Amino acid sequence: MTTIKPLTDLTIAQQAEMLPIKQIAEKLGLKEDDLDLYGKYKAKLSFDLLDDVKTRTDGKLVLVTAINPTPAGEGKSTVTVGLGQALNRLDKQAIVCLREPSLGPTMGLKGGAAGGGFSQVLPMEDINLHFTGDMHAITAAHNTISAMLDNHLHQGNDLGIDVRNIVWKRVLDLNDRALRNVTIGLGGPVHGVPREDGFDITVASEIMAILCLADSLSDLEARIKRIVVAYDRDNEPVTAEQLGAAGAATLLLKEAFKPNLVQTLEQTPALVHGGPFANIAHGCNSLIATKTALKLGEYVVTEAGFGADLGAEKFCHIKSRIGELSPDAVVLVATVRALKMHGGVAKDALHVEHVEAVKRGLQLLAKHVETMAKLGLPVVVALNRFNSDTEEELAAVLDWCRSQQIRVALSEVWAHGGQGGEALAEAVIAAVESNEAALTPLYELTASIEDKITTIAREVYGASDVTFTAKARKQMAHIQANGWADLPICMAKTPFSLSDDPTKVGYQAGFTVTVRELKPSVGAGFLVALTGNVLTMPGLPKQPAALNMGIDATGNAIGLF
Amino acid sequence: MTTIKPLTDLTIAQQAEMLPIKQIAEKLGLKEDDLDLYGKYKAKLSFDLLDDVKTRTDGKLVLVTAINPTPAGEGKSTVTVGLGQALNRLDKQAIVCLREPSLGPTMGLKGGAAGGGFSQVLPMEDINLHFTGDMHAITAAHNTISAMLDNHLHQGNDLGIDVRNIVWKRVLDLNDRALRNVTIGLGGPVHGVPREDGFDITVASEIMAILCLADSLSDLEARIKRIVVAYDRDNEPVTAEQLGAAGAATLLLKEAFKPNLVQTLEQTPALVHGGPFANIAHGCNSLIATKTALKLGEYVVTEAGFGADLGAEKFCHIKSRIGELSPDAVVLVATVRALKMHGGVAKDALHVEHVEAVKRGLQLLAKHVETMAKLGLPVVVALNRFNSDTEEELAAVLDWCRSQQIRVALSEVWAHGGQGGEALAEAVIAAVESNEAALTPLYELTASIEDKITTIAREVYGASDVTFTAKARKQMAHIQANGWADLPICMAKTPFSLSDDPTKVGYQAGFTVTVRELKPSVGAGFLVALTGNVLTMPGLPKQPAALNMGIDATGNAIGLF
Repeated sequence: MTTIKPLTDLTIAQQAEMLPIKQIAEKLGLKEDDLDLYGKYKAKLSFDLLDDVKTRTDGKLVLVTAINPTPAGEGKSTVTVGLGQALNRLDKQAIVCLREPSLGPTMGLKGGAAGGGFSQVLPMEDINLHFTGDMHAITAAHNTISAMLDNHLHQGNDLGIDVRNIVWKRVLDLNDRALRNVTIGLGGPVHGVPREDGFDITVASEIMAILCLADSLSDLEARIKRIVVAYDRDNEPVTAEQLGAAGAATLLLKEAFKPNLVQTLEQTPALVHGGPFANIAHGCNSLIATKTALKLGEYVVTEAGFGADLGAEKFCHIKSRIGELSPDAVVLVATVRALKMHGGVAKDALHVEHVEAVKRGLQLLAKHVETMAKLGLPVVVALNRFNSDTEEELAAVLDWCRSQQIRVALSEVWAHGGQGGEALAEAVIAAVESNEAALTPLYELTASIEDKITTIAREVYGASDVTFTAKARKQMAHIQANGWADLPICMAKTPFSLSDDPTKVGYQAGFTVTVRELKPSVGAGFLVALTGNVLTMPGLPKQPAALNMGIDATGNAIGLF
Repeated sequence: MTTIKPLTDLTIAQQAEMLPIKQIAEKLGLKEDDLDLYGKYKAKLSFDLLDDVKTRTDGKLVLVTAINPTPAGEGKSTVTVGLGQALNRLDKQAIVCLREPSLGPTMGLKGGAAGGGFSQVLPMEDINLHFTGDMHAITAAHNTISAMLDNHLHQGNDLGIDVRNIVWKRVLDLNDRALRNVTIGLGGPVHGVPREDGFDITVASEIMAILCLADSLSDLEARIKRIVVAYDRDNEPVTAEQLGAAGAATLLLKEAFKPNLVQTLEQTPALVHGGPFANIAHGCNSLIATKTALKLGEYVVTEAGFGADLGAEKFCHIKSRIGELSPDAVVLVATVRALKMHGGVAKDALHVEHVEAVKRGLQLLAKHVETMAKLGLPVVVALNRFNSDTEEELAAVLDWCRSQQIRVALSEVWAHGGQGGEALAEAVIAAVESNEAALTPLYELTASIEDKITTIAREVYGASDVTFTAKARKQMAHIQANGWADLPICMAKTPFSLSDDPTKVGYQAGFTVTVRELKPSVGAGFLVALTGNVLTMPGLPKQPAALNMGIDATGNAIGLF
C-alpha cells in the first residue's frame, strides 16, 4: 500500500499484544456465557445474547464507502478499522463491523484482507484462513442443496426439473478457474445424470447473501426455502424447499449465523461476519452483526463493498430496507492516488506529483458526495494518506472540500492507527451530532423493475439512459409473471467506473447503461441486474500468493501479508 | 440398532448433562492454557502441550476391532465409548480415541456417527456436523493443491504434466455421485485446460491419511511435499512440492492437526480426531491423538475401521509401525445378529432365534481370534448385546469362547452405558495385565510387494493364493522403479467378507484373492492394493437423512440420530 514498508501487515499483526477475547467482550458488558469461544482470541455471540439485547436503544451507525476503486488500492477496510480505533480514543464506545475475507483471493493475489498497517483486525492469520468456519459452513450448506438436486434427478426427477435449466451451481472457497464450466454426472447410469454445471466462489453463493440479510434463524430458513434452484419443464420455479433441502442447509448454518467477535490492533471490538460479493450480491457484512453491534456500542463503523455507486447504494436500498437501518453519517474514502488515476494518470506514474490530475479526479468525488446528499446522508470525506502523496496534492483535495463546505479530514490510520484517525473521528462525530441524517430511498419497491434500475443509473451513476437487451426484457417479464417484481434491485456493474465500462475512469456524464440480464435471487430477496460479464469464480495468477505460504519452525504462519 | 428404541441417540444426547470441557481437561491434569476452546464443550489441544508430555510414560493401549461387519450393524464405536466409560467406573483413568464422522454419510444414510445409546461422545450434534472444522480444512488444503495444479497447466505447464495422467482428484465432504466423473476446464482459453477429473469424499483424501499418520507439523509438511499429484510426459512423478503447494496446504492444516477433546455421556475424556477411509487408507483416528492420549491416560481405548482383517491388520502394520505403537490388548466385537448373518441368515430374518446359524458364524470369529494371536496380541471377545438376542443365542457364543479359553464378556453398553461394560472392562484389564502382548508384524517392509500382499492374504484372510492382474504387475514394476517398494501395504478389500467377494459371508478357506491395481500413496506412506472397485465418493439414497434435518423453534438440531 505504500512505497516504503518496513513492516508487513503480518509482522505487525504477529507482534501485537492481543487481549483475551473475554476481556474485549467485558468492555461491551458481555459475560462469558454470552460467548462461544473459538480459541482465546475469537468468539461467536450466543443466540440468547442476540435476543436479550433486542429492546435496547441503537447506537450511531457510520457507513464507510469510497470513490470508485482503482488498482492502486484505497484502504477502505483500513479506514474503517482506524476510525473505530480513533473513536475509542475519543471515549466513544465504538465497534467495527467488517466482512469476512474469502480464502480464494487470499491464496491468489491478496494474501489477506483484514485491514492494514496499524489498523487491522486480529488474529489476522485466523481471520484470513478458516476463521470460525463460516465460509466452510456456507460451502457445505450450498453444496448439500446441489447434491440433493442431483440426487433428485438421479432418483427419478419427480419434480420434473429441466436439466437444461438448473440455476443452482456448486461453490468452493477457492480461486479455481478450471471449475467455472464443467460437465458432471458422467460415467454411466450409476453415476448420476449428465449435465452442464459450474462452480462459483463461496462468497458468490446466494446462501452467503441470505446469511447476511436474515434477521433470525427462522428468517434464514424461510429465505433458504425460497431459493429457486431450477425450473421445471413448464418453466415453473423449483425451490430448495421442494427439494427438501432447506432444513439440512439451515442446520449446517446454525453456528455460522452467529456473529464473530474479534479485536483490532488497539483492542477495539470488531464483529467480522459474512462477506457477500458486491456485484451479484449486496456486498455488506451480516445484518445480524450490524444490528447486534448497534445494541452494544455507541458508534458502529461498518463498510460496504466497492465504491459508493455500488456498496453504499445497496446498503441504503437493500440492507437498510430489510434491516430497518439508517446510517447517521457516511465516510467517503478517497486517496490522492485514486483521484490521480481518475484524473487520467496511469498506475505506473502514480509516484510522480500531479496536482492537476488530482483536481480532475475531484469531479468524481463531487458526484459521490452529491449521491449521498440525495440519499439524505451527511458525508465526511476521509482523505486516506499514502507515503507517496505530496503536500500539494493533499492540499488540493482538502482545500476543495472546504471550499464546497464538505466535511473532510486527513486519515493516517495505516501508519499511525487510531491516533492517525482522530481528526476523522472528530469530523464524523460532528456529522452524526448534526442530526442531518434522514435516509431517503431513491426508489420505491412498488415501482417497475425498469423504473427502479433507471433511477439508480440516473441518480447514482449519472447516466442519461438505460437500455435493456431483449434477453433482459424477457427475463423482466418472467420475474413479473412469478410475482417477484417488488424486490429491490442489486446492480452488477464494474466497480472501476461510474458507467458500465471499466475503462471509463473519472467523472462521466451522458452515458448509457446496458442491462444485459436479470437474475432473481428470491431467497436473498433482490433482483440482480447484470450490466456486463461478472466473474463469479476467480482464477489464480501466474505466481499465486499461496506459493510463499507455509509455517515456520515454531508453527507460525508465513506468507500472509 | 435395536427393535425397541424408546429414545433416539439424539434425544439421549440432548438430555445429557455435559461438563464444561475445561473440567474434563482438568481430570487429565491439563490447564486452560493447554486448550483452544471451541465453544464450551469442545477444545483442541495446544502444540505446547503435545511437546510437554512427550517424555512421559505411555498408558495402556486397547484396540477395538470386530468381526466382518454386516448390514445389521455391530456397534464397534459404541463398544469403544462404553468400554472407556466402564474403565473409568473401575477407577482407571481412561481416554477414548475415535475417528471424526464425515458429513457426507451423515446427510445420506447414517444421520450421525458418534457411538450410540448410552455410549456416545458429546456434543453429538457438533461432532456430526462441522465439529472443529478439521474436515473443512482438509477439503481446503486438498483443493488448494488441485487449484494450483490446474493453474500450473493454465499458466504454461512448465513441469510438463501429462494431462491424461493426473492422479490428484478434488474432494468434497458430501455424498454426491454426480461429481464422481466430471470434465473441467471447459468454456475456452481463459477458463483453464480441459481435462477429465473427479471428486472423492474428503475422508478419502490422501491429506486425511497424512494428517492421521504425521507425528509433527513438520512431518505433516514433509509428507504433503511427497504427494504424487501427476506424472509428466516421461512418466516421472510430479509432487505437491514441485507445484509449490505444500506450504499453503500445511498452513491450512495447522489447526486441524491439533487433536480435539470432547467427552462421553459419562464424562470420560475422548479425543475425536481424523477419520480416513478403511479401504484405500488405513482407517484409524490420528496418530497424534493416540500418542497424546497415551501420555495423558492410564488406558487408551481406540478403534480401527471395518473388521479385524482390515482395520486391525492396518493398525498393526501401518499406524503402529509409523508411530511405534504396540497394543496391550485387542477387543474383538461380535454380535449375535452378525454371527447369524455370517452363519447364513438373511437380514430380514435376524429377529428369529437361530442358534445353529450363530454357531456356524463362530468359525469366522475363531479366524479373527487366531489372526490376533499371530500378531502377538491378547484378545477379549466383546459380545455386544442387541434387544433381539435370545439367551440361547448369547450362551452359544459365550460358552464356545470359554471352551476355547478365549476371554469373553457380554457388552450392554448401548442400553446401560459404562455400567453395561464393566464385565468387558474387567476382562480387558486382565488381558492387559497378563502382559501377553508382543506385537509381531506378519511381514517385513523389505519383503517384495508381492510377498507382503500374499502374506496378508494368507495369514489374515485365510486365502490359498493371490493373483495379480497384468495392470497390477505393471504398476508394481513402476512402484519398484520409483523406489517406493519398501512402504507397507494398505489393502482395499470388501469389509463384508474375509475374501475379496462381498457375497461370501462367514468363514471361507481356499479362495484366491485378485489384486487388480496398485496405487502408491507416497505422502501417506503406503501402497494401496485394490482387490475390487472401491467407491471413493458415495451417493445419497432415495430418501436421504438430510430430508428430515433442520432446527426447532429454539435452534436445536432435529433429524440427527
